[in-house]
Amino acid sequence: MQLTGANLIAGADASDGSQRQAALDPWSNEELAVEFVGATHDEVDRALQAAARAMPSYNAAAPRARADLLRRMGDEILDLGDTLIERCCAETGLPAARIESERGRTVNQLRMFADLVEEGSWVDARIDTAAPDRQPLPKPDVRRMLRPLGPVVVFGASNFPLAFSAAGGDTASALAAGCAVVVKAHRSHPGTAELVARALGRAIAACNMDAGLFSLLHGPGAEVGHALVTHPLTRAVGFTGSAGGGRSLFDAAAARPDPIPVFAEMGSINPVFVLPGALRERADQIAAGLHQSVTLSVGQFCTNPGLVVGLESPELVSLRASTAELIEQTAPATMLNSGIRNSYERAIGSFGAQQGVALAARSEAEVAAGRTEAGAHLFATDAATYMGNAELGEEIFGPSTLLVASQSREELLEVANGLVGHLTATIHAADGELEEYADLIAVLESKVGRLLINGFPTGVEVCSAMTHGGPYPASTDTRFTSVGTAAIYRFARPVSYQGFPQMALPEALRDANPLGILRQVDSTYTREPVSTGA
Amino acid sequence: MQLTGANLIAGADASDGSQRQAALDPWSNEELAVEFVGATHDEVDRALQAAARAMPSYNAAAPRARADLLRRMGDEILDLGDTLIERCCAETGLPAARIESERGRTVNQLRMFADLVEEGSWVDARIDTAAPDRQPLPKPDVRRMLRPLGPVVVFGASNFPLAFSAAGGDTASALAAGCAVVVKAHRSHPGTAELVARALGRAIAACNMDAGLFSLLHGPGAEVGHALVTHPLTRAVGFTGSAGGGRSLFDAAAARPDPIPVFAEMGSINPVFVLPGALRERADQIAAGLHQSVTLSVGQFCTNPGLVVGLESPELVSLRASTAELIEQTAPATMLNSGIRNSYERAIGSFGAQQGVALAARSEAEVAAGRTEAGAHLFATDAATYMGNAELGEEIFGPSTLLVASQSREELLEVANGLVGHLTATIHAADGELEEYADLIAVLESKVGRLLINGFPTGVEVCSAMTHGGPYPASTDTRFTSVGTAAIYRFARPVSYQGFPQMALPEALRDANPLGILRQVDSTYTREPVSTGA
Repeated sequence: MQLTGANLIAGADASDGSQRQAALDPWSNEELAVEFVGATHDEVDRALQAAARAMPSYNAAAPRARADLLRRMGDEILDLGDTLIERCCAETGLPAARIESERGRTVNQLRMFADLVEEGSWVDARIDTAAPDRQPLPKPDVRRMLRPLGPVVVFGASNFPLAFSAAGGDTASALAAGCAVVVKAHRSHPGTAELVARALGRAIAACNMDAGLFSLLHGPGAEVGHALVTHPLTRAVGFTGSAGGGRSLFDAAAARPDPIPVFAEMGSINPVFVLPGALRERADQIAAGLHQSVTLSVGQFCTNPGLVVGLESPELVSLRASTAELIEQTAPATMLNSGIRNSYERAIGSFGAQQGVALAARSEAEVAAGRTEAGAHLFATDAATYMGNAELGEEIFGPSTLLVASQSREELLEVANGLVGHLTATIHAADGELEEYADLIAVLESKVGRLLINGFPTGVEVCSAMTHGGPYPASTDTRFTSVGTAAIYRFARPVSYQGFPQMALPEALRDANPLGILRQVDSTYTREPVSTGA
Repeated sequence: MQLTGANLIAGADASDGSQRQAALDPWSNEELAVEFVGATHDEVDRALQAAARAMPSYNAAAPRARADLLRRMGDEILDLGDTLIERCCAETGLPAARIESERGRTVNQLRMFADLVEEGSWVDARIDTAAPDRQPLPKPDVRRMLRPLGPVVVFGASNFPLAFSAAGGDTASALAAGCAVVVKAHRSHPGTAELVARALGRAIAACNMDAGLFSLLHGPGAEVGHALVTHPLTRAVGFTGSAGGGRSLFDAAAARPDPIPVFAEMGSINPVFVLPGALRERADQIAAGLHQSVTLSVGQFCTNPGLVVGLESPELVSLRASTAELIEQTAPATMLNSGIRNSYERAIGSFGAQQGVALAARSEAEVAAGRTEAGAHLFATDAATYMGNAELGEEIFGPSTLLVASQSREELLEVANGLVGHLTATIHAADGELEEYADLIAVLESKVGRLLINGFPTGVEVCSAMTHGGPYPASTDTRFTSVGTAAIYRFARPVSYQGFPQMALPEALRDANPLGILRQVDSTYTREPVSTGA
């Protein structure tokens, strides 16, 4: 399992480009083995041509075959064993336990989509039977189901080298929907991406499928990404990363002669509202949970809680003190790369310099800059200052949070009303307190994709009910999630078949219901065959 | 039921603007009664403020109340009686029978969405129950359902003064989803829009709902439309009309600080492929159906078939001759307005002047320009000419079609491969012939939202399996339909609720399933209550 640094296009190495870059180990800031070759425009084109060519045979295969492929991909990733864990740790500065757990999540995502595809009802099949005698006009036989959108471009995320990268949720859901995928590797972990891409390639070969289903391209700057998003064959884009990066892809896609959807999940501040009753009951417990959520994986989660809002009170002072103590004891830790660490340091410096903002606490131990380390930070301010300074509403990517004290219930609601879109919002409440704050829930519901009661937003459960997305700028399309089974709907579109003879219909729409899926037949949900067949 | 020409904002007349324009009767090109007042920017703002304020109480009401409102709206439209029919005929040049049938469709759409909302399962409720003992981390209780997106702006369409206008499919589906609606009336039928808007206002009042749920604004130019699309409170846009108009709204929405979705259905050429066996069996019957579909409502449908492709053969010559004869006998008829008629005349002139294109037939009777009339046209060319001239691929809005003869099966497939996105594609085939042309079906499936066998694309059935939309430029978002029950999904987004106590959850997500809807509980579809409640 030697790395080559080449792009992988439909199962073959390609390295025509002249741009080469090695990955850096953030623990030492030294170059890791192998230089990765930036893809040329011709290679971008070849990857997308191969993707488009691979789709018809992939979609002609039974759902079971697609499920088998996804499961095999998971197995091949596991078969990489410690090679993957070691390279991934070296490229990301994340500890082995975290990478192992992320590998588990990545494999589970592939299996979850395999189950979904095998069950089959996700295609939302609908059959309206004909009524030839209807007056004044006969009613035609119309059937519809979801079909794959076309080749999907996926951008790997720096903070999830496995679960949101080469074989992450975007890739898994796009393949599950029947789309071929071209991944742009994140330059922060290109070796991890290559290892995973080769594992996917082996799975495709083992399942006798078209190698064009998956390609991986490198490219250190924005050029390869732009070429992928504007390529005529690209039909959709999945992205997890910064607001600036996501918006520039969105703009490029919207400016195409034929605009395509961009699903950019761009992070969020994930406000936490702590109600008075909860503070009275368990300020220390909330402080402990908050601290853990803020500092988990050095704060490098898009669901990191960067804002905590409460009513000014002795209990809020106590929450602040308990949190401050925990922050001070937090050991500095290595961030993903020096770019992210430097941005964090700049943001911390700028935050602390704002009028009316106090640095309430920071990691006491010294930060080792040569190890790309960052310390934890707690800032504090009042609601009036917060609402009067837009910079305080911007995300700091890293282990930092801002505690905001409001003078009244009304002011707390004002803070909520002033929020832009976020992935999540959390309320900590005592028993019975939620009824009293129903207006707060209603406001927050309009601002986010996921609401939590008495929990913390990090740790996004991968399940069918998850929404990971939210109103802009949390994501560019709030109608979809990037985590959970519903993520598949980003990459499919409905197609209707009118007046089709049985044998020309896709299996999902045939009278006999050979796949046994749940369908709407004349607007009634059923798994039964259609009795009044054409 | 006297028209006032005022904008209707949350149930009240508003006419602060200085721009005034009367509607023209296309039968005579004379002005009809009442001048309509263009909305001011302040009025645009008031309409959207009222819309946003109206949503919480509307969504707090039971699904039954929403269904009652939609049904009452239909009843109020019917109660307008002949006043509506007469004004609508005068404004559109369409005959009373067509308007009566469109009124029926409009009312049925409202009732269909009432049924959908009352049944309730459309919210796609999903419940993943907690597993507190799961290792290494407890599994949280996560539940999700679809919630309304926010205020929706709808643009009335010139060619469907009822079914795609003030109370058309966009308005009905947005209201069904729980969104308030602001309609921009089409300047071609402002009186029809006012009558319908007042009917909706009466329904809202009768149901004791917030008047802000619906507003109607006039504006002869693009300014009011642009102000509506760029208003900060607008969350989505529905539009049916020209490619230029739809794209300009899409671009304005994509350039917002917070981009919003635009569902623009921009028309289409709706290619029809006539296979050799079908031609041998029933060329005359196909000619008759084609002629009817091309000339229905003076060709003013977005599903109008503007391209017919067959293999060069004596039978294709015979199809051409039969169609030509029917076209010649077609009486010229009044179009919607002189702008549309003049565009049609220009397009016809330009088409006929293209190298290698023959005018095969046109209405023999003389066209009365003073009555805004247009005659039917049949053009013919060969596949090589067609593929070599991009102008021949552009839509002519009106009663015209182009017959293309290809020299071989391969050339016919080339024509299909070269198509851009369309709403529909149709294949006429003899028994057994579809198997032989499976590749043609596969190509066309990737190009359209609806495929028809042995039918004609006009007459879009309003049902749960309909897809009215397609790859760009047929529509700006091919993942959605603007006709049928699935149109509701354009105006909703998923929200997840994690760790919520029962009483704080929306009814659709409570353990007991009080609404009796179909849900996914731990990934299994069921209407049963959740047994392991929180």
